[in-house]
Amino acid sequence: VEPSLAASVTPDGLDAAQRAGRGEMAPEDLRATLHAAVDVVADYLAGLDELPVLPRVAPGELTVMLDGPPPIQPEPMAAILEDARRLVVPNVTHWQHPGFLAYFASSGSAAGIAGEILMAGLISNAMLWRTSPVATELEAITVRWLREGLGLPDDYDGLYTDTASTSTLVALGAAREATAAGASRVGLAQGRRLRIYASEEAHSSIDKAAMTLGIGREGVRRVGTDEVLAMRPDALRAAISEDRSAGWLPAGVVATVGTTSSTAIDPVAEIADICAREDLWLHVDAAYAGVVALVPARRAAFRGWERADSIVVNPHKWLFTPLDCSLLLTRRMPVLRDAFSLVPEYLRTTGGAGSGRDYNEYIPQLGRRARAIKMWLILRYFGLPGLASRIEEHIAMAQELGSRIDAEPDAERLAPSPFSTVCFRWRPAALASRAGEPAVAVLLDELNERLLARLNESGEVFLSHTRLRGLFTIRVSVGNLRTERRHLERLWDLVREHGRDLSTGIT
Amino acid sequence: VEPSLAASVTPDGLDAAQRAGRGEMAPEDLRATLHAAVDVVADYLAGLDELPVLPRVAPGELTVMLDGPPPIQPEPMAAILEDARRLVVPNVTHWQHPGFLAYFASSGSAAGIAGEILMAGLISNAMLWRTSPVATELEAITVRWLREGLGLPDDYDGLYTDTASTSTLVALGAAREATAAGASRVGLAQGRRLRIYASEEAHSSIDKAAMTLGIGREGVRRVGTDEVLAMRPDALRAAISEDRSAGWLPAGVVATVGTTSSTAIDPVAEIADICAREDLWLHVDAAYAGVVALVPARRAAFRGWERADSIVVNPHKWLFTPLDCSLLLTRRMPVLRDAFSLVPEYLRTTGGAGSGRDYNEYIPQLGRRARAIKMWLILRYFGLPGLASRIEEHIAMAQELGSRIDAEPDAERLAPSPFSTVCFRWRPAALASRAGEPAVAVLLDELNERLLARLNESGEVFLSHTRLRGLFTIRVSVGNLRTERRHLERLWDLVREHGRDLSTGIT
Repeated sequence: VEPSLAASVTPDGLDAAQRAGRGEMAPEDLRATLHAAVDVVADYLAGLDELPVLPRVAPGELTVMLDGPPPIQPEPMAAILEDARRLVVPNVTHWQHPGFLAYFASSGSAAGIAGEILMAGLISNAMLWRTSPVATELEAITVRWLREGLGLPDDYDGLYTDTASTSTLVALGAAREATAAGASRVGLAQGRRLRIYASEEAHSSIDKAAMTLGIGREGVRRVGTDEVLAMRPDALRAAISEDRSAGWLPAGVVATVGTTSSTAIDPVAEIADICAREDLWLHVDAAYAGVVALVPARRAAFRGWERADSIVVNPHKWLFTPLDCSLLLTRRMPVLRDAFSLVPEYLRTTGGAGSGRDYNEYIPQLGRRARAIKMWLILRYFGLPGLASRIEEHIAMAQELGSRIDAEPDAERLAPSPFSTVCFRWRPAALASRAGEPAVAVLLDELNERLLARLNESGEVFLSHTRLRGLFTIRVSVGNLRTERRHLERLWDLVREHGRDLSTGIT
Repeated sequence: VEPSLAASVTPDGLDAAQRAGRGEMAPEDLRATLHAAVDVVADYLAGLDELPVLPRVAPGELTVMLDGPPPIQPEPMAAILEDARRLVVPNVTHWQHPGFLAYFASSGSAAGIAGEILMAGLISNAMLWRTSPVATELEAITVRWLREGLGLPDDYDGLYTDTASTSTLVALGAAREATAAGASRVGLAQGRRLRIYASEEAHSSIDKAAMTLGIGREGVRRVGTDEVLAMRPDALRAAISEDRSAGWLPAGVVATVGTTSSTAIDPVAEIADICAREDLWLHVDAAYAGVVALVPARRAAFRGWERADSIVVNPHKWLFTPLDCSLLLTRRMPVLRDAFSLVPEYLRTTGGAGSGRDYNEYIPQLGRRARAIKMWLILRYFGLPGLASRIEEHIAMAQELGSRIDAEPDAERLAPSPFSTVCFRWRPAALASRAGEPAVAVLLDELNERLLARLNESGEVFLSHTRLRGLFTIRVSVGNLRTERRHLERLWDLVREHGRDLSTGIT
């Protein structure tokens, strides 16, 4: 492989600052550079359909193309951007591709990208009011706009973090502090072992938070689920009771609305009753599905979440916001501050939400990107009903796919689809009555693994998988701003074509 | 105040996607939107000199201008960007202003902003190799380029995190795991109280990490400093010995090269000796000053850091990288993984550094921005010597300011200036011999507080302050790509003018 890094470099392409080894490029060079970078992005987004969703590379192949000794000579910006176009752009996994239906979407809108451009140009660190007054006050404003849009009462305040992992860590850090008062000061070594409860289907970020917080992975107890993969309140009650008898100190419960595997919905209202009775912190993980509450007619799925101590909803998943932005809402901001503030009480400012507030006091990090700026652009560009209608559209597309599966004798859904995610497998009709036999079960798992591999190799779509009650399950999640009905129709054609082909001779 | 949000909105300005309430704007609208956002940024950066570094607003004033009910109608992108220009841009604290000499710089280069534009357009989540092959492999490559540039041996591997707070949290999480094996699994409740050591001058992120990790703030023991504000190794040895006798379990030491207050340098080599003898994790906080090691002639300040278990250096401080990017280097990646990975050992991939690696296994977060993309642009645009020469230039400017202070009978330096940060106060010559008298000390503190207020009110500069040995200290930190000699000359003129004016009648 030709060493590509130096291919297009000539001394002539350098700007004056590069030649002098001093300062920043001239204003007009800067403007041209940023416009050129935008053209890379705009060309990319306009041509997504032509790319395979998963780049066709194996681990290490890109290193062969990109590696070399550390750069010594400055290189012309035009050459670097040309290399970016050629080597970087095609070799990301194309989350923005309309056929990206894996995991949960992380779909960026033009409004959100424009917001990131402003953030990158201003680089305003929103750690203190003083270090970014407008980002601080916009954070309070846009958090309130979102809270109102989600239909949550006005005792919820909140802030942005980088990821749902951090939001959940902050929530469980507050639960830790609320249960073992003074933990942030004296640590956990002298206390009883804390326990956090979450369903078997809940996200691994809960385990990660417990590891980080010194609670430990064993401090997370997984609670059994019912036939629709929702947490069983009776099992939760029994677990808490058993743990109390055994000397554990229950600290909090994470209820999920929209689990990662199958988007199951825990019974939040019943769990809230238990938390109230047991005096436990209730954190609701709605990182993916929470935005559905922007559609008033769909709020039934969230019944009870208005009683949670904290809720996480990720704009960078299904709200057309570039990575990163996670919204943490809470009715107990002062407890977050007890858990994470280094400012002694007598030095704390007393201003209302947002004005003069120093948001770093509520989280593990000091430095903070000014995420409120992009949220302000996104909310104004779409308007709340505009966001809701796009979410409705995605749900409708997923429901249509679900109906096709239900109407297909050779396929079956493996879980309800309350939101925009469909779990299914190809199961030839001839095997329907024998699907429970161990040998047939293995056969079907293999068939669907091969089906998934073929679909992903097509380059037209990227789906992920999970296991539901032990069965290999193909998972389609809609949430990309660019996904249209035709993409799901094409997906279904591919599923049937390959499903039938792979079934030949099996039945 | 006129409600500004709706001022420039007309139905005509909406694009087709907004009118339909579906999907993303058309490719050519997207391109125009992003170019318009770039022009906001380019105009801003070209006109920085005209702005007061600190926006002239009080807490809550911006809320009056920006607040309103949640957006319902979509608004034309042009109107939103016009509002951004008018209401947002002037009201950030202008970290990019050449007169921003407060805290430590966070200075974005065109190359770095171009990198952020690519990151925002691609939105490639670098949590797994599979979800972003090129960002994963570029992370290994650019981390190695930086490591080589810093002159560190090849047993250092590493990764990017969002902030130094997170890098230090990860390092101390690894120290926790190395000392109390299994802590991430079983938690800390059953164990002995852990202790982390850092100097009295070390950064609050260490306390924050201890709070988050369940070690507790009291688990951080502050060690005394010498006359140049560096950690005293004898005091460290005594503290460890005393703690062991009292039942504490020492876990790690944080040595700082370039403290936040005065950029003091702890004696890393001697501290490394102690850590080796005591079997303690050594973490070096070089978040600000670490980049100085890109200048080979200046590596003496870092003597011994090549023996650290982990080192943090922040590109988003003094390496012309937009927020956020913190580099965590470590010789013990497997311990980070023990502390933060949820993947059982038997499922871990065995590929070499970078190729196929899933970086989320080493940190608290799952989702990760593809920061390697911007680092790749920055390193190639500047080249390592180009970065080094700009850092040298900043050090030279700071040294020149220091010399002016030394030559000024009415001012004095309050700490050595080993890097690009100068600590001083105005002290009329007539008071020099009486500066130790309590009444004079109070007078000088007040004088310098008023001097700082006047300088910051000028709008031409923004400085911060600290207290060194109880004395109110004005602090000038150079690190902005746009700061030139003339800005520091102007600063010195302002200091003398206001210093003399405020001294009138005092002496």
